[in-house]
Amino acid sequence: MPDTKAIVLLSGGLDSSTALYWALDRKKWDCHCLLFSYGQRHDRELTSAVRLARRRKCPYRVVTMRLPWGGSELLKTKRALPSRSLHTIGNTSIPSTYVPARNTIFLSYALSWADVLQCRNIVMGVNALDYSGYPDCRPAYCRAMQAVARQGTRMGAEQRRPIRLWTPLIRMTKAQIIRLGISLKVPYEDTWSCYAGRRIPCGKCDSCRLREKGFSEIGRADPLIPRSS
Amino acid sequence: MPDTKAIVLLSGGLDSSTALYWALDRKKWDCHCLLFSYGQRHDRELTSAVRLARRRKCPYRVVTMRLPWGGSELLKTKRALPSRSLHTIGNTSIPSTYVPARNTIFLSYALSWADVLQCRNIVMGVNALDYSGYPDCRPAYCRAMQAVARQGTRMGAEQRRPIRLWTPLIRMTKAQIIRLGISLKVPYEDTWSCYAGRRIPCGKCDSCRLREKGFSEIGRADPLIPRSS
Repeated sequence: MPDTKAIVLLSGGLDSSTALYWALDRKKWDCHCLLFSYGQRHDRELTSAVRLARRRKCPYRVVTMRLPWGGSELLKTKRALPSRSLHTIGNTSIPSTYVPARNTIFLSYALSWADVLQCRNIVMGVNALDYSGYPDCRPAYCRAMQAVARQGTRMGAEQRRPIRLWTPLIRMTKAQIIRLGISLKVPYEDTWSCYAGRRIPCGKCDSCRLREKGFSEIGRADPLIPRSS
Repeated sequence: MPDTKAIVLLSGGLDSSTALYWALDRKKWDCHCLLFSYGQRHDRELTSAVRLARRRKCPYRVVTMRLPWGGSELLKTKRALPSRSLHTIGNTSIPSTYVPARNTIFLSYALSWADVLQCRNIVMGVNALDYSGYPDCRPAYCRAMQAVARQGTRMGAEQRRPIRLWTPLIRMTKAQIIRLGISLKVPYEDTWSCYAGRRIPCGKCDSCRLREKGFSEIGRADPLIPRSS
């Protein structure tokens, strides 16, 4: 069977949208997008994800799930989101927006779908440079999940066709990711990064700050932010 | 913090029930049971799991989830369950009752809960001797998930207190598991193994056949099966 399919974890944010365009345009894969509605504050990101999948004519699935134990300020709660300086982000302890084991849960569903689709590639837009400091975004974590893909699936165990986990952005800065995305014509005006889940980006959460840093480093305006005239 | 808590994956079947009693009675852990309603044919097993958790006064959570892609005859479907001889079970290809990446999904939720509970132990009743041949029950798979527990959680990454995955039954035969369970006073009449999901065990599915083999090897009657008088 030709190695043409990929499952792309698509949140609708800047990184995963760039990863989708990389998989479609650089790898020429037939991409299937996997979206999660997990009680995130910013479920507005799902609208962006669906719009991107449709624009590129990719089949997609939305998994609806809840963590009964909560444990994150990124989940819908009455508590305020933390606002941190760029200097702090990624350099201190794991922030309160960490969703416990989120990427392991997302990847486990992706492995399940991959086994059914007979798909050998899973693409994830994780990044370990300009990032919030979540443990499940680092290269050592991704290597561990790669071993699980090999050992814990029908594709890996029986068919000797291990599923490969691709993380094309993992060692890029946010500026490099945006440069790549611009070259691939990612419609960043249709992506959504802000954690706050309001109509316009808050400009204060980690995700807004990292996005702003990236655009500012390459001297471009973020097409999502209305310009003051 | 003392190392007293454990999360036990509890299906209500023979293996996971024995693993729960092992954790409570051998390890003296304060056990939290994790149950899954995933569209299994035999959701009757959940009644057994809840009864066991309550009997041992363990807090429990039920995660409700669905795999939108199906992909298993163990999920509710109109297709019949396969009926195989004992000789075939575990010795041929992965059977159609394999639920794609099920244990990875279950363990990823367990890791999430462990990070919230600050719990260092996860117990799972997987078994790689008298088993159906699922890839995600083998020692190499469990080692891979152990690495994920270390790399992908707050407990592992920040607190240097890796979560340990315990699989006490992995190298036991079904007869050895039942002997252990009897010594721990596991109420096997309250467990449920049959895949078919009817009122009484079908006696024909892999799970019934393996259970019957275990009891017969130690010369005991299965207390779940009504005796013909």
